Amino acid sequence: MALADTRYSNRRRKLMTELSGQRIDAIIVTHLTHVRYLTGFSGSNGGLLLRKDLSALMATDGRYTTQIAQEVPDIEASLGRDVGPHLLEKVSDDLRVGYEADYVTVAQLERLEKAKPEGVTLVPVTGVIEKIRLVKDNIELQKLEEIAALANQALTELIEAGEVAAGRTERQVAADLEYRMRMLGSERVSFDTIVASGENSAKPHHGADDRELRKGDLVTIDFGAHLRGFNSDCTRTFVIGEVTDFAREIYDIVLRAQEAGVEAAVPGAKLVDVDAACRDIITEAGYGEYFVHSTGHGIGLDVHEGPSAAKTGKGELAEGMTLTIEPGIYVPGKGGVRIEDSLFITSGAPKIITPYPKELQVL
Amino acid sequence: MALADTRYSNRRRKLMTELSGQRIDAIIVTHLTHVRYLTGFSGSNGGLLLRKDLSALMATDGRYTTQIAQEVPDIEASLGRDVGPHLLEKVSDDLRVGYEADYVTVAQLERLEKAKPEGVTLVPVTGVIEKIRLVKDNIELQKLEEIAALANQALTELIEAGEVAAGRTERQVAADLEYRMRMLGSERVSFDTIVASGENSAKPHHGADDRELRKGDLVTIDFGAHLRGFNSDCTRTFVIGEVTDFAREIYDIVLRAQEAGVEAAVPGAKLVDVDAACRDIITEAGYGEYFVHSTGHGIGLDVHEGPSAAKTGKGELAEGMTLTIEPGIYVPGKGGVRIEDSLFITSGAPKIITPYPKELQVL
Repeated sequence: MALADTRYSNRRRKLMTELSGQRIDAIIVTHLTHVRYLTGFSGSNGGLLLRKDLSALMATDGRYTTQIAQEVPDIEASLGRDVGPHLLEKVSDDLRVGYEADYVTVAQLERLEKAKPEGVTLVPVTGVIEKIRLVKDNIELQKLEEIAALANQALTELIEAGEVAAGRTERQVAADLEYRMRMLGSERVSFDTIVASGENSAKPHHGADDRELRKGDLVTIDFGAHLRGFNSDCTRTFVIGEVTDFAREIYDIVLRAQEAGVEAAVPGAKLVDVDAACRDIITEAGYGEYFVHSTGHGIGLDVHEGPSAAKTGKGELAEGMTLTIEPGIYVPGKGGVRIEDSLFITSGAPKIITPYPKELQVL
Repeated sequence: MALADTRYSNRRRKLMTELSGQRIDAIIVTHLTHVRYLTGFSGSNGGLLLRKDLSALMATDGRYTTQIAQEVPDIEASLGRDVGPHLLEKVSDDLRVGYEADYVTVAQLERLEKAKPEGVTLVPVTGVIEKIRLVKDNIELQKLEEIAALANQALTELIEAGEVAAGRTERQVAADLEYRMRMLGSERVSFDTIVASGENSAKPHHGADDRELRKGDLVTIDFGAHLRGFNSDCTRTFVIGEVTDFAREIYDIVLRAQEAGVEAAVPGAKLVDVDAACRDIITEAGYGEYFVHSTGHGIGLDVHEGPSAAKTGKGELAEGMTLTIEPGIYVPGKGGVRIEDSLFITSGAPKIITPYPKELQVL
């Protein structure tokens, strides 16, 4: 508990340091992912008022009285259902109080304005907590590695049990994989499982429907588990029965691109260059127009978070960041391949936390 | 397809009729549930610009070009990633344009303000689409009944297979139930499955953890499936092995309360009275302080939507509305019971779409 407390209070200190340039005396945090990040509170209704001097107050409703005392022993909690206005009413001085403009709705801001004591000024804040979240601490990395390992074991068991096979539907395969993750301890999927077979594999955002897998199909499985706030994300593409020349060709290109992307993911690398490392290989092979999305994203409390390895990516990688590398080729009517790993950026080569083999596997 | 089109255009007409009192010439709808409700579009990025004369324009990004043409054949779609500002740029006259203040964030409003052609005025709109959604049409009712039947079948199979039994963990039971729903066609759970056993059954919002079910436990299972936008919601409480006097007592009270709530759910009934019909029975039995939530909510595209049967509920029931009736008693340290049906409000007695038996079942 002591360890956790220090971690959360360190984050709160970082936040106020980041905000020190912005003439802000306090901030009201109501985006639940950020409340959890800064305090450890995991309930479905909660907010944090944090002042420059790091004094803090939380709010939640009666359902979470016991839980908030256990999860956040070092911050007093006040009971109120509409937590933002409730916290703002507690601000007694003439302070400039920040709020999260990317999450607070126009209607919520109106309620904040109404609750605001005279003399208090509301100030929009954007992107600051997201910036702090970019670099993970050791406990976050450990938790991400644990949930990735759980998902990896589920996929391993699924394949070994022969559950990805001709005659089974995409939905059945998805159900089996989700069941295995759940039985291993996952609280839920981190996103809707994709099992995209045959012509469906050419749709990057296909779900899992009633199509039966058949001989010659490419089958892309993109899946994630969720445990205590943290998410996993991994994609592998398999072949059913026999490998067509087309499947072999695009699989090899995507795999080469993926490995080049992983190799490029080192501290100091520009995010546009990581994207280019993947993309150039696919473009040179003549399939550039079929790689229709970006190369990767960070993963943590959100399944998609910063940084973004894209053509329009800004900034560069640093040690402690996470990143997926997930190039794909999607040829409408013919099929597609995507291969995705989740990585930790380290001082040397990145650490791959999604160890399932990447050689083409015929099932 | 023709049928669906009429349904969606009827809803758009209703919306503009509702807005006619508000000096609004057009509305930009970006909340995805509402975009789906008004057009049928099911993608993860889309918006609708709807004018007073019912002329309309949609926006989505390149991933959904084919899908939007199939799902919404009667509205032209324009490509742009930030769909709200993209649509607003297309407004050429000096119009007053509404936006959804309950969903548009402060940062999004700023982007709308920037994109706004000179002469256009942005006007916040709240609660209007929610109001139209309150009364369901026959196709919505049919889809809600289908998904409720699917979930009901999964529970029936789970119980018949003996999967709710001493020695199994809450998580295993949840995994089995979710697996059965998935194999029957559910796309995902409509909310995290609750399997709350023994002392956990006294926590209304417990999830499903590693606790093993044992003889004498009350076990509350609250679960839902999701299919093509629509959700189900049902709760039953079982007993493992043998029934204690306490379990029998609170089960009987909750069941009587639940049946009284169902009986009260007729057109014209005030929502506070529906809540009171349940609550009074529990209060008179001496357990009023242990019924810590409201009696029920509407169900449809959201698992929780209007109307709200609560102490603070406003308005009354009308034919075509949906409602859950879900009283509970939760005695900390001892255990709890919740029984929940989903209903359609009809001209006579409500139609229960969650037919699983409500007599106390010992497993």
